[in-house]
Amino acid sequence: MIDLPNATLKRLSLYRRCFIELHEQDVKKIQSNELSQIIGIDSATIRRDFSYLGELGRQGYGYEVEIVLEAFNKLLNTNAKQECVLIGIGDLGRALLKYFSSDKFKKAAFNTPVNLVAGFDIDPEKIGQNIGELPVYNQEGLADYIKKHHVHYAIIAVPPKHAQSVADSLAGLGIKGVMNLSSTIINVSEDIIVHEVDINLELETLFFKVLQNQM
Amino acid sequence: MIDLPNATLKRLSLYRRCFIELHEQDVKKIQSNELSQIIGIDSATIRRDFSYLGELGRQGYGYEVEIVLEAFNKLLNTNAKQECVLIGIGDLGRALLKYFSSDKFKKAAFNTPVNLVAGFDIDPEKIGQNIGELPVYNQEGLADYIKKHHVHYAIIAVPPKHAQSVADSLAGLGIKGVMNLSSTIINVSEDIIVHEVDINLELETLFFKVLQNQM
Repeated sequence: MIDLPNATLKRLSLYRRCFIELHEQDVKKIQSNELSQIIGIDSATIRRDFSYLGELGRQGYGYEVEIVLEAFNKLLNTNAKQECVLIGIGDLGRALLKYFSSDKFKKAAFNTPVNLVAGFDIDPEKIGQNIGELPVYNQEGLADYIKKHHVHYAIIAVPPKHAQSVADSLAGLGIKGVMNLSSTIINVSEDIIVHEVDINLELETLFFKVLQNQM
Repeated sequence: MIDLPNATLKRLSLYRRCFIELHEQDVKKIQSNELSQIIGIDSATIRRDFSYLGELGRQGYGYEVEIVLEAFNKLLNTNAKQECVLIGIGDLGRALLKYFSSDKFKKAAFNTPVNLVAGFDIDPEKIGQNIGELPVYNQEGLADYIKKHHVHYAIIAVPPKHAQSVADSLAGLGIKGVMNLSSTIINVSEDIIVHEVDINLELETLFFKVLQNQM
């Protein structure tokens, strides 16, 4: 895989989603300035980001939607599904289980590597339920499940005070990546990559952007 | 406000949250390499990001937690609360209303500009409820509410197929920033900044990071 800057990485999935939608709408070709208007990223950044992916378009000619989409799919290695578990079935966890069972998601699923397979919780009332079409299991069985099913990714959606102990329980099981939705910082061993998603932080980022725009 | 690169902007809130936690734990000073271990961003990036904020630390001496926190708060203009509404009370919307009413959030609220004031939905069963401590109003009254209360920010958490019509309904009301949680691309007028947050995209970003790390 090409060594991409972090900021570009961050935008790749957004580009890819846009090209999936364009492809569904049967758009064959798009200019970087049209793309810029759709996704709100300036054309220069788009052209620079796309240049990392090789020869995808020519100046003044635009990008062929299908060719770009194939390049993204290859990059994301969409043929190799990435099994993922979710720990913590609060409102957010529930929303995610429903989303990953939804028709919209499944329709796009042939070209996304995300494969959420189960939720885990400690609450007896939640254990044994299906949410969307995904099962909720007892958190006590988490380690065994991860090892048995070769799960490499975990989403932590428990309350802040339990986040670190859940993170600790993931060590040594073969987990490669953790998405932390718990609104608190967690420490993990060095072989695990943590990706933080916090709606409050995202809102603050939006405020920063608006402030900058008003300068 | 200083003109900060987008990638730095993205990290500012994460730094700020970390310094709030350090301050709560009564930590007075921290080195960039310690900070790097806590938040998983390399020290060189941290030092570069912090250099945009002026003279916050000296090589080998570390950052004074209180001084850095003040610089962040000033930058975020935390004294000026940013009123925000949420449209769409599904599981995700519900999670957000609860989160922004939570003790954890309120404890930190003196130094965050986020002020979520109300939710809106079209479902009669949801209208009139309180979730957390925040009211859910009839979406028909959205425009009037935004104008009357000088709301500048909106979070769109409706299903994908309704996202564009909600975005359209926000035009011309004084909204400056929209956080789009609807998993689809929306078009807005040029005076509104859109910030996209999509858990599926975030998961893909995590996969990219792990793939890069394995090279």
